Amino acid sequence: MKGIGGPGAARARKGFDWRRAVAGICLLAAALGCGAAQAEDGYELWLRYRPIEAARADGYRAFATQLLAGAATPTQAATREELQRGLRGLLGAAPPLAERVTRDGALVVGTPASSPTIAGLRLDTEGLGREGYLIRSVVVDGRKATVVAANDDAGALYGAFHFLRLLQTRQPLDRLDLREVPRLKLRVLNHWDNLDRHVERGYAGESIWDWHKLPDWRDPRYVDYARANASIGINGTVLNNVNSNALILTPMYLEKVKALADVFRPYGIRVYLSARFSAPREIGGLGTADPLDPRVRAWWKAKADEIYRHVPDFGGFLVKANSEGQPGPQDYGRSHADGANMLADAVAPHGGVVMWRAFVYSHETPDDRAKQAYAEFVPLDGRFRPNVMVQVKNGAIDFQPREPFHPLFGAMPKTPLMMEFQITKEYLGFATHLVYLGPLFEETLRADTKAKGEGSTVARVIDGSLHADTLQDPLTGMAGVANIGADRNWSGSHFDQANWYAYGRLAWNPDASSKAIAEDWVRMTFSNDPRFVAPAVGMMVASREAVVDYMTPLGLHHLMGRGHHYGPGPWVDGGPRADWTSVYYHRATREGIGFDRSASGSNAVAQYAPAVAAEFGDIARVPEPFLLWFHHVPWDHRMRSGRTLWHELVHRYTRGVDEVKKMRAAWDGLAPYVDAERHRQVAAFLAIQEKEAQWWRDASLAYWQSLNGRALPPGYAPPPKPLRYYQSLEFPYAPGNG
Amino acid sequence: MKGIGGPGAARARKGFDWRRAVAGICLLAAALGCGAAQAEDGYELWLRYRPIEAARADGYRAFATQLLAGAATPTQAATREELQRGLRGLLGAAPPLAERVTRDGALVVGTPASSPTIAGLRLDTEGLGREGYLIRSVVVDGRKATVVAANDDAGALYGAFHFLRLLQTRQPLDRLDLREVPRLKLRVLNHWDNLDRHVERGYAGESIWDWHKLPDWRDPRYVDYARANASIGINGTVLNNVNSNALILTPMYLEKVKALADVFRPYGIRVYLSARFSAPREIGGLGTADPLDPRVRAWWKAKADEIYRHVPDFGGFLVKANSEGQPGPQDYGRSHADGANMLADAVAPHGGVVMWRAFVYSHETPDDRAKQAYAEFVPLDGRFRPNVMVQVKNGAIDFQPREPFHPLFGAMPKTPLMMEFQITKEYLGFATHLVYLGPLFEETLRADTKAKGEGSTVARVIDGSLHADTLQDPLTGMAGVANIGADRNWSGSHFDQANWYAYGRLAWNPDASSKAIAEDWVRMTFSNDPRFVAPAVGMMVASREAVVDYMTPLGLHHLMGRGHHYGPGPWVDGGPRADWTSVYYHRATREGIGFDRSASGSNAVAQYAPAVAAEFGDIARVPEPFLLWFHHVPWDHRMRSGRTLWHELVHRYTRGVDEVKKMRAAWDGLAPYVDAERHRQVAAFLAIQEKEAQWWRDASLAYWQSLNGRALPPGYAPPPKPLRYYQSLEFPYAPGNG
Repeated sequence: MKGIGGPGAARARKGFDWRRAVAGICLLAAALGCGAAQAEDGYELWLRYRPIEAARADGYRAFATQLLAGAATPTQAATREELQRGLRGLLGAAPPLAERVTRDGALVVGTPASSPTIAGLRLDTEGLGREGYLIRSVVVDGRKATVVAANDDAGALYGAFHFLRLLQTRQPLDRLDLREVPRLKLRVLNHWDNLDRHVERGYAGESIWDWHKLPDWRDPRYVDYARANASIGINGTVLNNVNSNALILTPMYLEKVKALADVFRPYGIRVYLSARFSAPREIGGLGTADPLDPRVRAWWKAKADEIYRHVPDFGGFLVKANSEGQPGPQDYGRSHADGANMLADAVAPHGGVVMWRAFVYSHETPDDRAKQAYAEFVPLDGRFRPNVMVQVKNGAIDFQPREPFHPLFGAMPKTPLMMEFQITKEYLGFATHLVYLGPLFEETLRADTKAKGEGSTVARVIDGSLHADTLQDPLTGMAGVANIGADRNWSGSHFDQANWYAYGRLAWNPDASSKAIAEDWVRMTFSNDPRFVAPAVGMMVASREAVVDYMTPLGLHHLMGRGHHYGPGPWVDGGPRADWTSVYYHRATREGIGFDRSASGSNAVAQYAPAVAAEFGDIARVPEPFLLWFHHVPWDHRMRSGRTLWHELVHRYTRGVDEVKKMRAAWDGLAPYVDAERHRQVAAFLAIQEKEAQWWRDASLAYWQSLNGRALPPGYAPPPKPLRYYQSLEFPYAPGNG
Repeated sequence: MKGIGGPGAARARKGFDWRRAVAGICLLAAALGCGAAQAEDGYELWLRYRPIEAARADGYRAFATQLLAGAATPTQAATREELQRGLRGLLGAAPPLAERVTRDGALVVGTPASSPTIAGLRLDTEGLGREGYLIRSVVVDGRKATVVAANDDAGALYGAFHFLRLLQTRQPLDRLDLREVPRLKLRVLNHWDNLDRHVERGYAGESIWDWHKLPDWRDPRYVDYARANASIGINGTVLNNVNSNALILTPMYLEKVKALADVFRPYGIRVYLSARFSAPREIGGLGTADPLDPRVRAWWKAKADEIYRHVPDFGGFLVKANSEGQPGPQDYGRSHADGANMLADAVAPHGGVVMWRAFVYSHETPDDRAKQAYAEFVPLDGRFRPNVMVQVKNGAIDFQPREPFHPLFGAMPKTPLMMEFQITKEYLGFATHLVYLGPLFEETLRADTKAKGEGSTVARVIDGSLHADTLQDPLTGMAGVANIGADRNWSGSHFDQANWYAYGRLAWNPDASSKAIAEDWVRMTFSNDPRFVAPAVGMMVASREAVVDYMTPLGLHHLMGRGHHYGPGPWVDGGPRADWTSVYYHRATREGIGFDRSASGSNAVAQYAPAVAAEFGDIARVPEPFLLWFHHVPWDHRMRSGRTLWHELVHRYTRGVDEVKKMRAAWDGLAPYVDAERHRQVAAFLAIQEKEAQWWRDASLAYWQSLNGRALPPGYAPPPKPLRYYQSLEFPYAPGNG
């Protein structure tokens, strides 16, 4: 067959290489478009394994002439299966299995325990831990081979995915010398999934957990969930909403949890549960949930024991307590530490952990919302058990398009802090706006807390290195509020998959480049054609700033529609809490706008290290992206551009919309390089995004004008409708409402 | 290529037949299992179009050597596209398009208006109406051809699907002479979908209508929905729950409804909406919804006009009024006819209809629930506008596993009655129990009302022929409460798709054989291998009786868990209405069980024609399947089997469980003939069904024993747990709750 030959043909010394022939027929058939075209509906995420172009494939085949990979454990079997699936898709046929290297180009995968070949290589696997791996070009018995080696099956699984990624992204396979060790121990997803399958802040359909049919029916989709997560190193999943339902701790549900844990275990993923603090009362029949009450402590201990009987490697609990109406230790005059430690003691004998969320704000205290978590938690520094992590959102308000890093990072040197990012786009356009969050995650991770001088990045806080003197070998971790649902494409839109992907890659390596991650993702998910890759990556990296511009420019925040958080609502006022309104956060008047968090205002800046506080607190030094986060500023304030603040705001909103228009034009131009199915959907969503970006701009400007009485600068189109029109819009069934 | 040759080769007179070559490569590739195996996840329903085995395919190719099918209208384009898709999948390649017949074996599809060839044949298309079609083997210009002809594009579309079905079920294509005309005009689905995407009594995931992204994003799935429905002749869909939300009539939602209507129109499907009777108050700002109030009439007229501006072929309204808390004309002292006629007048100028549900029961009247619809509607016979249909459930209670036909059938000779079946298995095991409902639908349709002597079948009532003397050319129709949701397999389980399929086939021809329909479906959806077909069809046709046996034998009814309707609950008692309990319906005591609907009881039998009433009302003549529906019977009553009633009940429950065990064994044996993916899922669901059938049996028997104080007959295993255990089970998140 034409095109199948070259170096590989020479290797087929042992008679007719029928695998090569089959591979050839398969590739020919694919080229002819035989049968049903492989649907590009997004289901396969970044693990599409489409045939590699012939010349390249031939070259790669030389590095996968045979596969040495055991299947003695479930993880080994999963690893081997993934390699076979991937190589079959990419190269037309899976390499034959072998027990020993007998050809040049063998691929050897495993651990010293699983592979005599690897054991014999005596590789330098120290420091890889359980999850790290090497990928190296070696010589075995005089033959070239690629080895993917680890200390543990889990590391080999991660290494196998990495190897496949090299092919998916068309990297060279000769002279490999890669070494990867995850920087954080716990790399988890948080599903805000309710037991009725509603996903809070979910825009990708209902919960994928079909509780009614579990445990007897385990949807094969759960395996694909596990594969996708393993491919990006995610090793834990919290199954249920932080606004928790105690029923998940009852026997009926523990059977179902166990079934899920059994599916995930071979992929290195442990299951965790959100624990409702009042469970001892709600399902335990106790009259109290006081963490210092011996009956309560005994109840949780017994409950933990019961959970571990079902799931021996259960990860532990995630807890939202005394926040937004959730029960907690403060209901009994106890502290967060009291509550966390009680649960920690219950799971410690089993190796479990507690992730205790710092997203709290008092019922009563009218202090600046941005200050409250710090005020509650810093006094508790060092008071938590070693198996407790305090889980802190990236910023002090709530997952806005831009927030300065949370002041708790660097301020609790004796407590392991876990980063909480939001992958689902609650405040960033739901599923229809193309917003790549890699830059947002990266910005936070690289932010310098200056807690111990320059270079005290948030990444170094959460990886334990910054406070190594006060915390010995602490737990480390990152949590991501998942954007996963029952939609065919998992995440609500094709590009939203990239946020799940980037989150996993950054949890593995918090210093990775979000742009490089975007490129990997684009290559794996769409195409390696350079005419596609560069523009697509460009769209992605520009998208975060676009949404900041059209929703919440210059440090503005929390201006969305009430309840559902869909669309603009800078006028939102009234209701049970001031800090649930928009007016609380923008404080716009006839003379200016912005929240004074400097010393003349709430002094939230003082919660940062002095060098940072000095910068943020000084209107002349604060980075412009944070101007209105930290300062109340007159509309006439002169910006670095030379424009007044008012003019700059109008400029930014307008620029944001223009950026979306550019994204649309760019995407239109990419039609020749991508399947029609996905091109059409992305194009339709970009059209929605442009409409909604325009809406955000117009509604916001109409409102600011109603306060400042100012005209738009010349050259800017006024909002086409009056303010009351925008204020009248209602969306009673916008998805994901809490 | 081996296997590709024979008669077809001779026809390739005009040079190399590259299409045949491609087809051959494709079939070879499929045989080799190239690339990703086509997932058998159920998404394609019965329109899978998998390659036909080589010898057969070759024979078929002789009947599809070229395709004459216009594409001048959207329906023509949809028709052509479906034929190309189907033939490509089945035969390896779509036949080339042609304008004239130039080869033996041409396939000619269309109408006299769309096809000069068809016009020239001067076929006997009278009586086909708009939706009927012919499929006939003819000779055109001396060449053999198959013609699929109709008067209208819609008929040609239906004919095209029928033609494809012939191949899918391996029927011969020579000497075809088929003529099909639908017996009912309106063949609709009723989606009980809410605007928040919850599907009431839905077990297949959330609603497929993604309202939030409509109208700008029209999920390609909507096209596949339309194709599936068109393939079984369904020509209308009511988008929203009969427990209606007035918001669907507001401009924001009408834009979304229009978008859906635009997708469905080419497939011959019209959109309808459930109308909330109190909409004039809720969204119209009026102080009343009195159907006789001129302002209310004007509001509905204007609303109808508005709807028709969006959707010019809008079908009309479905209304649930004065039932289960829904608002209605009786709130104003008006009749159902007043209410229906007001709406009918609003839509009549546009050709619209009103389907007014007869599922009503009074707040106050303590009369037998089974009598209430008749009591309310018979006095209104003849009082409805011609464009009103009264929509009547198949039985007088609520979609139980078995109900005698509704007494309204045959009792309203001056009013068009529309049948309402339930396709979703609210009372039949949700998505996990394999229950083929074809026999249930068929039993009702073939039931003899004897309203005008023998042969006054329910089918003849609803097709208008029985009352042709009192109703001239009436509306006719059937409604099916859909089992469709966002699940990948649409219906919650693979075999549940068969119920959607059978419903459509029976709506087209109410006298069709449910067993023949099952065979078609099995062949199209799974396999034509006779080793598979016969056992699978056997399983299906036996399944309905099995569920009757293990849930509600011998005429028992309404014994399920409260609210969610999941699992057994014969003890359900108390609450706001007696007729929402189980005890109301079984009336079991120490001495007997069953609801006396004979003359000595509620006399519901008197609502039937005298011959039927005499049969049902006489304990010696009533068919045993209806015994406890119509009679209160002592436990010692001697059954036809010779057993006592108690013994017979125990026998039936146990037999039902045994039947499921047989189904499991049968399915296990079918593994070699079906893909592993679906085999595994069906097997897992059958295991769940066996567990739940056992549960129904055990819980029910434990309860009956607690009342009758009797032991089980010898040889029957007692319930393994005490009654209180079964009574204690709670399922707060069972799906589909209302």
